[in-house]
Amino acid sequence: MSENIPIVENILNANDLIAARNEEQFRAAGLLALNIMASPGGGKTSVILQTIEGLKDAFRLGVMDGDIVPIDLEKIAEMGIPVTLINTGGNCHLDANMVHGALPSMQLDGLDLLIIENVGNLICPAAFKLGVDYNVVIASVPEGDDKPYKYPAMFKGADVLLLNKMDLQEYMDFDVDYFRHGVEVLNPGVAFFPVSCRTGEGIPAWLDWLRERISQKPK
Amino acid sequence: MSENIPIVENILNANDLIAARNEEQFRAAGLLALNIMASPGGGKTSVILQTIEGLKDAFRLGVMDGDIVPIDLEKIAEMGIPVTLINTGGNCHLDANMVHGALPSMQLDGLDLLIIENVGNLICPAAFKLGVDYNVVIASVPEGDDKPYKYPAMFKGADVLLLNKMDLQEYMDFDVDYFRHGVEVLNPGVAFFPVSCRTGEGIPAWLDWLRERISQKPK
Repeated sequence: MSENIPIVENILNANDLIAARNEEQFRAAGLLALNIMASPGGGKTSVILQTIEGLKDAFRLGVMDGDIVPIDLEKIAEMGIPVTLINTGGNCHLDANMVHGALPSMQLDGLDLLIIENVGNLICPAAFKLGVDYNVVIASVPEGDDKPYKYPAMFKGADVLLLNKMDLQEYMDFDVDYFRHGVEVLNPGVAFFPVSCRTGEGIPAWLDWLRERISQKPK
Repeated sequence: MSENIPIVENILNANDLIAARNEEQFRAAGLLALNIMASPGGGKTSVILQTIEGLKDAFRLGVMDGDIVPIDLEKIAEMGIPVTLINTGGNCHLDANMVHGALPSMQLDGLDLLIIENVGNLICPAAFKLGVDYNVVIASVPEGDDKPYKYPAMFKGADVLLLNKMDLQEYMDFDVDYFRHGVEVLNPGVAFFPVSCRTGEGIPAWLDWLRERISQKPK
């Protein structure tokens, strides 16, 4: 199906154009935007909940969630945070246009941080820019230390990498050095935070990193 | 991009045609074929290794692996099993044509069981039939008990469901009843095996199920 390739290229080019428009709106609003990506069950929602808990008194936050059911958003809305469900209809990733369509649902001028939770998938979301400041990839210990070697596009495209569920490390064979070596080959010097959303381990360092970047945004 | 939908439909129809041809070849060879699907790190390779260990003395096995690196296949080849890497080039799923192209690399007539390991992805592989006898979905405890509610297509399309990493259940909040309820709504009565590839718990029941089905194939 070689005739399919130009179509895919056109879709990606169109996506980049719309991502640039999203970026412009985020810049105009003076907010920091994150695209959170992980495998199913890697801990996207748990990281978001910890982030809200740590930052909600100092900053104004909003969350968009690419999903088919609002289970995760209900937990977030209970914390008093404005939320939008981007119904993906079972699609395997968010794209810039889905995010663009959701922007009017949220008062961007009133936000310091916009968190976009992508679909649980370690492959497809890596190909679609959303226009955010940082692509945040969450890996987790039970997934195994070989993930950077097997899903290189996702780890190569990360601006920040969290390694979640560190509290489970003692129950399994997870070689952090082997994992980090795989990441460093693809993405040298990428910001790296080992965390546990269950125990709170490592979360303060992630929050410090985030606070610094939110504060750099002109108001 | 509504003009994109007929293209997608054509691709799926073409896939079904080729899947039917694969099915015919599997039937002619008298083998049982499995399509193993899971999230990244859910335990596809571990289940395959346990299955080989349990069945290799009684049956002739072969493994095809949709991946970009042969890390997993090396472990399997070390057990004396014929293996083929279906290089996906970073694609997010196997399709019938990729499998079809790989069939000549393996002596199908000499096999009782062909295991096809799909790409680690809980969304995309569900849309592409490969022509196998059984779609085997592996979920795992650390991914959380809400997965059937969030990835319904995958759980709906499963012929057999393994819940792996049961040994980690004591360290986390995983409600097996809630998980099973989500599955039963989508896929009533689906064969279900809670297992731990680490401890071997539950593996004998899975192997019994498989032995029975291999034995039903005409030789």
